Amino acid sequence: MSKVFVVGIGPGGPDFLTAQARTALERADVLCGYTVYVELAQELFPDKETYATPMRRELERCRWALETASQGRNVALVCSGDAGVYGMASPLLELAPEFPEVEVEVEVVPGVTAALSGAARLGAPLGHDFCVISLSDLLTPWEVIEKRLTCAAEGDFVICLYNPTSKKRVDYLRRTCDILLRAKSPETVCGWVRNIGREGERSRLLTLAQLREEQVDMFTTVFIGSSTTQTIGGRMVTPRGYET
Amino acid sequence: MSKVFVVGIGPGGPDFLTAQARTALERADVLCGYTVYVELAQELFPDKETYATPMRRELERCRWALETASQGRNVALVCSGDAGVYGMASPLLELAPEFPEVEVEVEVVPGVTAALSGAARLGAPLGHDFCVISLSDLLTPWEVIEKRLTCAAEGDFVICLYNPTSKKRVDYLRRTCDILLRAKSPETVCGWVRNIGREGERSRLLTLAQLREEQVDMFTTVFIGSSTTQTIGGRMVTPRGYET
Repeated sequence: MSKVFVVGIGPGGPDFLTAQARTALERADVLCGYTVYVELAQELFPDKETYATPMRRELERCRWALETASQGRNVALVCSGDAGVYGMASPLLELAPEFPEVEVEVEVVPGVTAALSGAARLGAPLGHDFCVISLSDLLTPWEVIEKRLTCAAEGDFVICLYNPTSKKRVDYLRRTCDILLRAKSPETVCGWVRNIGREGERSRLLTLAQLREEQVDMFTTVFIGSSTTQTIGGRMVTPRGYET
Repeated sequence: MSKVFVVGIGPGGPDFLTAQARTALERADVLCGYTVYVELAQELFPDKETYATPMRRELERCRWALETASQGRNVALVCSGDAGVYGMASPLLELAPEFPEVEVEVEVVPGVTAALSGAARLGAPLGHDFCVISLSDLLTPWEVIEKRLTCAAEGDFVICLYNPTSKKRVDYLRRTCDILLRAKSPETVCGWVRNIGREGERSRLLTLAQLREEQVDMFTTVFIGSSTTQTIGGRMVTPRGYET
């Protein structure tokens, strides 16, 4: 029986790879995924065969991985960050039942998602309850996103935003801040990290009012504090409890 | 200048450790933390000096780490899962300003938190927007937890519960399910994983109605699906979008 490993490789570079992810890449006969991530994995295993496809061809990629495994080869489907958080594990597992279980086994290999790696760069923004929300409305109606932002603000969660912008969605972060400002103070401690763990990494702490005016790109992960989040020694820190 | 590394080692065992975490443990002169986690880290580096303290002595442990670093030694503060998610990064960064910056530098090293490692075991429950909520009311008033559960349910988030129970809080998961059932269907797909990545790992998929009757322990991480979460081929899968 052959395997499809869905492998989260972390934010980029071999430093964030778990031992389990490394082993999965090693055991694969072919590395498959979005071009940029496959190239990152290939840095570790330069002799591996690869099958890279452009963005937004996810289902095609999953089908290819399952077909290749059913023909007797191990495949690693390479994901940035974690395998499951907005990753390829979902579409792969949705397609998997079309292939006989005796031929193909799927193993999901978790990785350090941007919420965790970005948080570490800023300090400890995720020290208490938090939400992760993607602002991409490619596959999700904006009304659903808006409802979630509203609920996250009312619940006083720390909020981590993925896909805060794109070419077609230049004003989404501003719209998001306007929604959050209905329930949250403009002084709420926020932060962003760009190109986590890669060349050109940058980060900034700022208030929610300032975030509303900020220009970020699609390689940025945004953090919005809860009412207890503070700036301490230049870092964004959410205390673990309400005692202090 | 000496360093305090706050290191997330993942759910247990060397398999989930990132290369960055391994390097941090290697560079440390002493491994510090809750006994169980220090022992896990020590399996990798059996010759390292250790300083282990029981549960709930977190502040003492942080102070010890900072003092030891200010005396010229590198310390790794070992956390299960991630360093920041309900981890030691927050209390450490809260105390750090008491120590001169020229003497002590804090580096937060992220790790695979139970939401990610547990999700991988169940399939892909975190394929779309999600919340992480701790049911521990040691440091958080129950009213805050209840409010967050209500908001998470109303926002139709996937919900991942940490600390679902303890000796003093035997009925908290049941109370939680009752709150969620006000907004969510009793047929909502749920799952739990116990002892993730350790000996005696177990998991189960079940409905929210069944989860209400379930006995779980404090080593269990619980997942409650959104309205789109499905059981596919025996796995818990939340599609990445609303197109399917």
